[in-house]
This record gives sequence, C-alpha cells and structure tokens, in this order.
Amino acid sequence: MTGRLYGVGVGPGDPELLTLKAARVLQAAPVVAYFAKRGNSSNARGIVAALLRPDQVELPLLYPVTTELHRHSPDYIAQTAAFFDESAAAVADHLGSGRDVAVLSEGDPLFYGSYMHIHVRLAGRYPVEVIPGVTSLSGAWSSVGLPIAQGDDGLTVLPGMLSEAELTRRLASTDAAVIMKVGRNLPRIRRALAAAGRLDRAWYVERATMAQQYTVRLAERDDAPAPYFSVVLVPGWDGRS
Amino acid sequence: MTGRLYGVGVGPGDPELLTLKAARVLQAAPVVAYFAKRGNSSNARGIVAALLRPDQVELPLLYPVTTELHRHSPDYIAQTAAFFDESAAAVADHLGSGRDVAVLSEGDPLFYGSYMHIHVRLAGRYPVEVIPGVTSLSGAWSSVGLPIAQGDDGLTVLPGMLSEAELTRRLASTDAAVIMKVGRNLPRIRRALAAAGRLDRAWYVERATMAQQYTVRLAERDDAPAPYFSVVLVPGWDGRS
Repeated sequence: MTGRLYGVGVGPGDPELLTLKAARVLQAAPVVAYFAKRGNSSNARGIVAALLRPDQVELPLLYPVTTELHRHSPDYIAQTAAFFDESAAAVADHLGSGRDVAVLSEGDPLFYGSYMHIHVRLAGRYPVEVIPGVTSLSGAWSSVGLPIAQGDDGLTVLPGMLSEAELTRRLASTDAAVIMKVGRNLPRIRRALAAAGRLDRAWYVERATMAQQYTVRLAERDDAPAPYFSVVLVPGWDGRS
Repeated sequence: MTGRLYGVGVGPGDPELLTLKAARVLQAAPVVAYFAKRGNSSNARGIVAALLRPDQVELPLLYPVTTELHRHSPDYIAQTAAFFDESAAAVADHLGSGRDVAVLSEGDPLFYGSYMHIHVRLAGRYPVEVIPGVTSLSGAWSSVGLPIAQGDDGLTVLPGMLSEAELTRRLASTDAAVIMKVGRNLPRIRRALAAAGRLDRAWYVERATMAQQYTVRLAERDDAPAPYFSVVLVPGWDGRS
C-alpha cells in the first residue's frame, strides 16, 4: 500500500479562498509538504496555518537559491534540479511507507507552481490527485472589481522578466493581458505597455486578497520595485454589452 | 441601508471546489441569483444546490437567446443588452430594499462570466464584493494532471470561435495555450493547432471535475461537436527542470 500524492492549491492568500476540497484533503493528510526559501517562512503554509494539526508531519522543502543567481545560469539550473530531485525523494519516502502527502501550492498547483516539479517526478509512480485552486490572477482582478475578459477576447498571461521587445509584441497582439512576477521589472513593463498602446487601461495590484492588499491604476504607481505578490492587469473588455 | 452585491464564483463543477468564502456568503445571502438559458436549468445553481435553503429567494436570470442568433448580429446584441439591463434592475430591486444578493457565476466571476454584465451596471451604485473562484481551465489541467505553464512561459487563452487564421497566428506566438468554447469549432481548432505545429501536444478535456469528465489526447478525439464544457489544452512546459 503506497500513499497518495495530493497537489493542493491553497489560493491567492486569503485563507477563506481555500476550496472545501483542499481544506478536507489537507486536514486528512498525515504529511504536509510546502516550499519556501531557506531561512524564510512558507507563504503557502501561512495561508493554511489555522487548519494544521500538531500530529501532522510537516515537510518543508527549502529552495537553496532563488534570485541570487540568474535563472538561466548553469549553476542555478543544476542547483534547482538537484533540489527538486531531493524534494521528490523526500516526498516519495512517505508515499512508499503508505502515508498520503499533501504538497501545498500557492494559487493553482499546475499553473506556474513549484508543485509541478514534484508532480512530473512522481506522477508515474504513485497515485496522484491535483486539487485546483484560485489563482493569484483571479484574486487580483476580483480585488479591483475589474472584468478582465469577455466574449471573443483573448487573454495573454506573461511573466514580467521577458524582454521589452517580447512584452511589447505580445501585449500588442492580445485583447486582455496579465503580467506576473512584476518585481524589479516594472519600468520595462511600463515601457512595453506604452509602446503597445495599453498603458492607460492598466492596473497594478499588490498582495491581492491579503491583509496588505494595494490596488492602483498603473499610471499612478511609481517605478519602485514591486513585491513578489504583484501583477499588472490590462482588461480586454470595457463594459460594452 | 442598501444591500450588498456579491459576485460569487462557484468553480468548475465539482461542488467541493467552491471556496470556503463562497460557501459562507452564499448561505448567508437572502437572495441568490443565477443565469440560465430559458427552459434550461442553471449549471451554477446545480453546483451549489446542496447549500441552498428553502427560505432563500431565488432569482433566475433567463437568457432570451444564446446560440440561435449570431453573437455579432444586431438582433442578438439588442436582445442581450436589454436582458442584462432587466437582470440588473431585478437585482437592484433587492439591493435597494436592503437585501444582499449573491449572483452565482460558474468558474470565476470576472473571467468570461455573465456576472460581469451585472457588475458593470451596478458596481457604482451599491457596495460590491467579488469572490474569485477556480476557473474551468484550472479544473481541466488539474484533471489531466498536465502542468500548463512554468517559469518564462507565456500562456494564451483563446475563444474557439476565432477565425482559423487568428487562432493559428496566436497559437504560433505563445508557449502554452488554452482554447475555450470548443463546441462546434473543433475541426477549425485542430487545423489551427496543426498549422502552428502544436497539435501533438494538445489535450481535449470535457466536463472537467464533473461526474461525466472525459479527457483524451486531441489526436485521439474525432471532430464530432463538443459540449459547452470542453477545452483544449496545450502545455508550454514539457517537464524540463
């Protein structure tokens, strides 16, 4: 008897935005795993802290490196691949001993989530179930009350670290857009939005659905670095009906 | 004292994929509104049926027309605009009398949801809160266990009724893609995927997270019309790490 691997989406930040299923599975799992940067607390664990029980085994998976090295450098790639291998092995140890493991994922597990590195390593070897969650994107446009896309609109999701030319090209060829991982990329994102003629409709959203949430039209936001939990929204729909 | 308007995302289909917040707000609301086609039952109401109480007022909002007329025809546009005006007025009647109204939305309210037509008509006049939900897209890729996007990937969401040329152009310029509203558009979608060189990686998902869920590689699916609740997924990420 092996255990079952659960990828559990915990939503964008508000603990009430967990699904009923995520809450049930999380509370029933003997082992709860989560990612964090070494020395930092886990955001995903923080979201579900009130649901955890003292008798659950916690398995922190601690990134050895995040932004200190360029994400395309051989050193970064080698260190993170080894880290994902070790993390999957630690999860597999529990599964092999018959214990279910819930791997927490901020937002939705298979949408830009660290969980997928565990998933691709173990899905062929153990029973797996992925519990989808509310994405940080849905949290962001809901916080602003901004209809993001409707009808024939196409919506493009872009990571903010793409080049200015690439951002501009993609922003110019879509109706609606969301730019994730804003961080230190805000000046470049702003230039790309201006070049694509979309700056006037853009919103900036920081820590959506969390206590410190902040939303403002991008035109009124300066270029100071943004925190990790920030996105830029460009609605495709202007309320026509 | 006016009531509060809630846009409540009820998720992709599995009643357990409601959020804790959606369940709480829904159960506390004196009035529950939902869209359906005239003569049909409401999918959103079906998802939350077990949570409704006999003393809640139900306000069905019944589309006078859906696919019988072309969505760009003047007649369709006029009829649906009048319908959204009347629907908003019916919701406003309750709000003006001090009753909170929960407007149900399949998936996520501001992401291709009918709710946004109520939202844009009433958000300036009444207190409004939008409760994000798990999208049908997250339900689809979670059901397949398919990591959809990671790292630098861009993800493009496209409605299936776009022209073949437009679909091809957009599919060729993205990493990951999701095509919604597949319906009778499957042959055109397949040709566009082939032209963009993405057919071999595509999955077809029908009624994700529901009892009748069906998933298959698109190459193994024939061209028979698909139901409303179907999507095509093209992952941007192939498990590299």
